[in-house]
Amino acid sequence: MPKKPSMNRRTFVAGAAGALGAGVLKGVTGVTPSLAQEAEIPVPPDPTRVQGPPASLVGSRSPFEQPVRLLHPRLTSSRTPLQDLLGTVTPSDLHFERHHGGVPLIDPDRYSLLIHGMVERPMVFTLEELKRFPSVSEIRFMECAGNFPRNAGEETTPQQICGLTSQSEWTGVPLATLFREVGVLPEATWFLAEGQDAAVMTRSIPVEKAWDDALIAYGQNGEALRPENGYPARLFLPGWEGNASVKWLRRIELSDGPFMTREETSRYTDPLTGGKARQFSFVMDARSIITHPCHPGRVTPGWMEVRGIAWSGRGRIRSAELSFDEGATWHRADLQEPILPKAHVRFRYMWRWDGEEATILSRTTDETGYVQPTQRELVQARGVGTSYHLNPITGWRIRPDGTVVYRTEVWG
Amino acid sequence: MPKKPSMNRRTFVAGAAGALGAGVLKGVTGVTPSLAQEAEIPVPPDPTRVQGPPASLVGSRSPFEQPVRLLHPRLTSSRTPLQDLLGTVTPSDLHFERHHGGVPLIDPDRYSLLIHGMVERPMVFTLEELKRFPSVSEIRFMECAGNFPRNAGEETTPQQICGLTSQSEWTGVPLATLFREVGVLPEATWFLAEGQDAAVMTRSIPVEKAWDDALIAYGQNGEALRPENGYPARLFLPGWEGNASVKWLRRIELSDGPFMTREETSRYTDPLTGGKARQFSFVMDARSIITHPCHPGRVTPGWMEVRGIAWSGRGRIRSAELSFDEGATWHRADLQEPILPKAHVRFRYMWRWDGEEATILSRTTDETGYVQPTQRELVQARGVGTSYHLNPITGWRIRPDGTVVYRTEVWG
Repeated sequence: MPKKPSMNRRTFVAGAAGALGAGVLKGVTGVTPSLAQEAEIPVPPDPTRVQGPPASLVGSRSPFEQPVRLLHPRLTSSRTPLQDLLGTVTPSDLHFERHHGGVPLIDPDRYSLLIHGMVERPMVFTLEELKRFPSVSEIRFMECAGNFPRNAGEETTPQQICGLTSQSEWTGVPLATLFREVGVLPEATWFLAEGQDAAVMTRSIPVEKAWDDALIAYGQNGEALRPENGYPARLFLPGWEGNASVKWLRRIELSDGPFMTREETSRYTDPLTGGKARQFSFVMDARSIITHPCHPGRVTPGWMEVRGIAWSGRGRIRSAELSFDEGATWHRADLQEPILPKAHVRFRYMWRWDGEEATILSRTTDETGYVQPTQRELVQARGVGTSYHLNPITGWRIRPDGTVVYRTEVWG
Repeated sequence: MPKKPSMNRRTFVAGAAGALGAGVLKGVTGVTPSLAQEAEIPVPPDPTRVQGPPASLVGSRSPFEQPVRLLHPRLTSSRTPLQDLLGTVTPSDLHFERHHGGVPLIDPDRYSLLIHGMVERPMVFTLEELKRFPSVSEIRFMECAGNFPRNAGEETTPQQICGLTSQSEWTGVPLATLFREVGVLPEATWFLAEGQDAAVMTRSIPVEKAWDDALIAYGQNGEALRPENGYPARLFLPGWEGNASVKWLRRIELSDGPFMTREETSRYTDPLTGGKARQFSFVMDARSIITHPCHPGRVTPGWMEVRGIAWSGRGRIRSAELSFDEGATWHRADLQEPILPKAHVRFRYMWRWDGEEATILSRTTDETGYVQPTQRELVQARGVGTSYHLNPITGWRIRPDGTVVYRTEVWG
């Protein structure tokens, strides 16, 4: 079925990814991937008549599919393009990143982790030694505490709303194993985790998290950690704010109290009303986002599958619901099995759009009974002084012409 | 803790991936990634004293981690580096590939799938239309029928033994949904799946597989299919030989019998003894491989975690076992939860190597009771005329100096 020659070449707006490799970011100043360049992609009129390119050492994406992360203007973070993604796994090269001193280059053969302080036997572990211990692999989300836009308008995308959450299969050694190895003393109740980036990131973590489910992770989605995610080894605290999962980890010090570092006093603490503050607010609360339809996007009337993800740092997702009437009634969506704890879960709901203006909202409830709040409820509880741990119900408005815009009203 | 300046720069043998992008394969003739080039990686003596590179649109691997696929000399396939991988997900750019006419470049806006033949209503579906249907996401392995080396020596690696299996989270629409849409007639018992590559790959599939769990897949590991894996849409038959999961799918024709195409008569049929042959041998039998320790690799005495993967096209893995005495006794390994059906499962076993010459073998049993056979049992059952569906128990010999070589003896 050859097509007309006039259709042979297609002018295509490619993402900036093709032109700009990692680390070659001269001139990138915007927050949107607007560096898109026009490219002509030579598509054969009939692919069955043309021998295609051969096998390759490492694959690359179709020129028609160039998802990119969204860069912060200061290049200290980048956000996952949730609206482009299917399923639950985030490709490692699109996993969000956040760092305070850039991405350090670390030689794995020179890497070591010191565990000391209130322990019977201070020890240093090389990467090879860490890999000799019993390991686990777990599909879990990782989310930044500050995963909400400061400003939002109708053109806000899922990537801007909550693109600081991503999901990987993490592989590593349980921290509990190492704590038994060094003999953590009974009076040790907190530990300091210290990174070897230029920020020397430090956070205080309760020892209980180590006995529960903390990992020293060296694997991500089947391969080594990516540099921006802590290569060659990082702390990984399932369900907790990403900053506490210190990357490029070089030192753990056991103590009988928190260390009160800059990153848990000046930062990553939530100012409340009345001069109070919420400190060590580690757990990421349950949240959901509709990733289709969404902005930017356009739909046509008829049946479509409304899709999104839901997750909770407290455990498994119990339900995801959709509302088409501003929250008056809620309809339960299907959840994709297996529903893993502290993991993004894909939800889906078949919906027939009649072509009239419509809104769709999503909310989720986790297995502890925690219900994702409205933005109004969040403000009532915590005031407006914090930009951390914001997880309000969000949604989209579908205009009669099929365009989809962010639902900006604070309601509930 | 600054290191000596003399350690600042490290001479590093990088994989060929860095120098050769996909499609830039001039001069590649070997089957091993021996195009490795020496490169100097400028590692700072103390990463905490140097601001690292900023955030990027698309991430890239550490220069110290450059896993590559293993190319067939004719560049018609490439194998996954199983010995380099952790967990169960295969990074999409390292998923094995096998094609018979190269990798076609297809414009998703011009893509369509025709379903016709013994149906009430022949229909054509665009990609956008396929995406409107209810979708599912499933983590499943994909394995080529010919996943065994023709020749093996002591220097054979897991990548050469069975690198034609990989695992992804696949997203798509159940074929059963489309079959209900077109109204498949009761007398239709088989269907033809036809690709739009230069080979115009065609295979006959029993209709039962569509009612069971076949997908039209358009997503892989959270994003669009990769070009070498069928972009923009492919058939996906969980647990069945990869060739039958026709890529770049353009046509499905319902019929009352198989179509007896070249790829199921001349190829992908298993010659047995006595002039007989096994045809339509779709299901991939249970198999396992130890990926650590393995060749190439070297170990030191003491405790280590023996790691590998096990999988079965018949369903879930029930057990993976290791033998250190040539199969006389077997020891049950731990299986990583969740154990998904028709999926690679990671197994692990703590083992103490005493420094003497040793062998380690792995075998798996699936939930149907099928036990992975020895190579001798396979030859007894099917002769030596076939190179398809070979899944023998394999293993490694550890020499006193710690080097690990492939266990070449046929035993059992």
